Amino acid sequence: MAAKSPEEEHPVKAFGWAARDPSGVLSPFNFSRRATADNDVRFKVLYCGICHTDLHFIKNEFGTSTYPIVPGHEIVGVVTEVGSKVTKFKVGDKVGVGCLVGSCGSCENCFDDLENYCPEMILTYAYTYYDGTITYGGYSNEMVASERFVIRFPEKMPLDGGAPLLCAGITVYSPMKYYGLSKPGTHLGVVGLGGLGHVAVKFAKAFGAKVTVISTSASKRDEAIKHLGADSFLVSHNPEELQAATCTLDGIIDTVSAPHPIMPLIDLLKSHGKLVMVGAPDKPLELSVFPLLMGRKMVAGSGIGGLKETQEMIDFAAKHNITADIEVIPMDYVNTALERLQKGDVRYRFVIDVAKTLSVAA
Amino acid sequence: MAAKSPEEEHPVKAFGWAARDPSGVLSPFNFSRRATADNDVRFKVLYCGICHTDLHFIKNEFGTSTYPIVPGHEIVGVVTEVGSKVTKFKVGDKVGVGCLVGSCGSCENCFDDLENYCPEMILTYAYTYYDGTITYGGYSNEMVASERFVIRFPEKMPLDGGAPLLCAGITVYSPMKYYGLSKPGTHLGVVGLGGLGHVAVKFAKAFGAKVTVISTSASKRDEAIKHLGADSFLVSHNPEELQAATCTLDGIIDTVSAPHPIMPLIDLLKSHGKLVMVGAPDKPLELSVFPLLMGRKMVAGSGIGGLKETQEMIDFAAKHNITADIEVIPMDYVNTALERLQKGDVRYRFVIDVAKTLSVAA
Repeated sequence: MAAKSPEEEHPVKAFGWAARDPSGVLSPFNFSRRATADNDVRFKVLYCGICHTDLHFIKNEFGTSTYPIVPGHEIVGVVTEVGSKVTKFKVGDKVGVGCLVGSCGSCENCFDDLENYCPEMILTYAYTYYDGTITYGGYSNEMVASERFVIRFPEKMPLDGGAPLLCAGITVYSPMKYYGLSKPGTHLGVVGLGGLGHVAVKFAKAFGAKVTVISTSASKRDEAIKHLGADSFLVSHNPEELQAATCTLDGIIDTVSAPHPIMPLIDLLKSHGKLVMVGAPDKPLELSVFPLLMGRKMVAGSGIGGLKETQEMIDFAAKHNITADIEVIPMDYVNTALERLQKGDVRYRFVIDVAKTLSVAA
Repeated sequence: MAAKSPEEEHPVKAFGWAARDPSGVLSPFNFSRRATADNDVRFKVLYCGICHTDLHFIKNEFGTSTYPIVPGHEIVGVVTEVGSKVTKFKVGDKVGVGCLVGSCGSCENCFDDLENYCPEMILTYAYTYYDGTITYGGYSNEMVASERFVIRFPEKMPLDGGAPLLCAGITVYSPMKYYGLSKPGTHLGVVGLGGLGHVAVKFAKAFGAKVTVISTSASKRDEAIKHLGADSFLVSHNPEELQAATCTLDGIIDTVSAPHPIMPLIDLLKSHGKLVMVGAPDKPLELSVFPLLMGRKMVAGSGIGGLKETQEMIDFAAKHNITADIEVIPMDYVNTALERLQKGDVRYRFVIDVAKTLSVAA
């Protein structure tokens, strides 16, 4: 039996924008979503952030994409329906869904609230769901997800600026906590001042850290220090600046996904310092081992975060007035926005005003 | 004023074997040691282990060697004199000195008993001491060191088999403790079954770990499992064996100092697993970042250990009957032993019987 079309496989009509092929151009797309199951939370999408990962997927840069793809994993909205077994949410609540909509629920990582490391985790879009259908993301009019994967947005958290925290926020918050870099007085480096990096600076300052931004672009110095509140700034290709900062950092969050030298970053670490990669360069990096031995240093990785920690991060962000710096765009600007994102021309995150600009009649 | 000759710079005559140039050939050598200062412990050398690092230094492979070099940093003996302020040792005690004989004493690492990460640490040989003279190691008739850098050998610890623990032992023990790999039930990989690796297996088993030895040499399987008590064995160039062991290890102690691929090792780690390098390949390794992100894994380094932990390690080893497997040699066999060591032809550590075979009259 042939699989049903995206429009017919589920009972509830849905609408969004999708990429149809690796050109990555998005266009209006009719599909469908499942009915609200017992554990499901259904919500009207209000805003959806544009993450750099969306670009990778719509252009099939990981080689795993099957089209059509409705991107978007920084999704916020208002609850319209809840299943009979839902306990944490009610109609009218402000909620969000990030990168994950499923996991096995029975492995060690799931028991430890680390669904993001479950080998059977299900991504929010372009992934196969339990029922064999493909997941569709937040560039769409509505969303439905199992309660476990839904985040509550506190009243005081702006939904537009808060949306990017569901991916960019948790991606930098989680390693700061796990690797012991969230203690007041920590001297933290943040490499790359983009969607992730600018949020990393904000969280680090809220934790009470001293923050040094490290960037290829000297022009970001004022922005880092005056606007974001970083304590200092290093140009990554200036050997004198780096030399002067040798052995000063307790840890570094490296948000850069282009291949780049990491040994100069390791030299910036004090002994026992930690270089944590949250961007994934697509080529292997060069690692000299001797500097790791001499200072008991490490190069580590971290990928998003579990749902419990994502909620904790959103609550912390609300308490400390942390949001992403965003440029709100209409749905039909999305292809232009993706082109600008590719060039790094955004300060610092595009967020689509879905509710006001996605025309169901398109 | 010209510096005094090694024979004249200190008041106490000493005798050992030294390398005179990068050929690395050792020959008898008259030098001198300082008088016993207030905090000093002086001891007659009974045994000294031969570490692979000795080879690097005598052949000037780090480019830092100044000759003559008296190697040896796995030194044990019996106390012959103590300074007036020494509180922990008395004449007749069995003691040892490992890789360090000095540190600044006032930095954060020194306060934390991590003298091994003090930027001003002084190595036991071929290093400049506080007074400007060069340090000489344990291929010699006697040793003198400040109390802080002297380790007590418990009565039941054999001195010959215990000597290599002062370097090889602490090098593998310290990272198991620091990186949380010493808990019972840990599944630990040990890469390389040489001087460090075979001791790592013994400590890991004593900690209650399940141990998998990973080696290039299939011929070591029986040795690893039957003799050393490892639970399993993987040949590192056998893709099927590696594939079957994917995501099974909590941590890995990698003792190999030749350049080698580490990504297959990272694949053996469970999520949150730790690859700890204790050998220092002289060329950069290739590091793919994506696998680190996907499993929150890390590549870390560790270098020997502090003095407090070295004492703890020796006490633990004595309690659990851990010694190195050694081949005891006479002093005049040392050049042959170094050649054999270069070829990996030793199971697993040479130890020089200094007291019985170093002829002062040579």
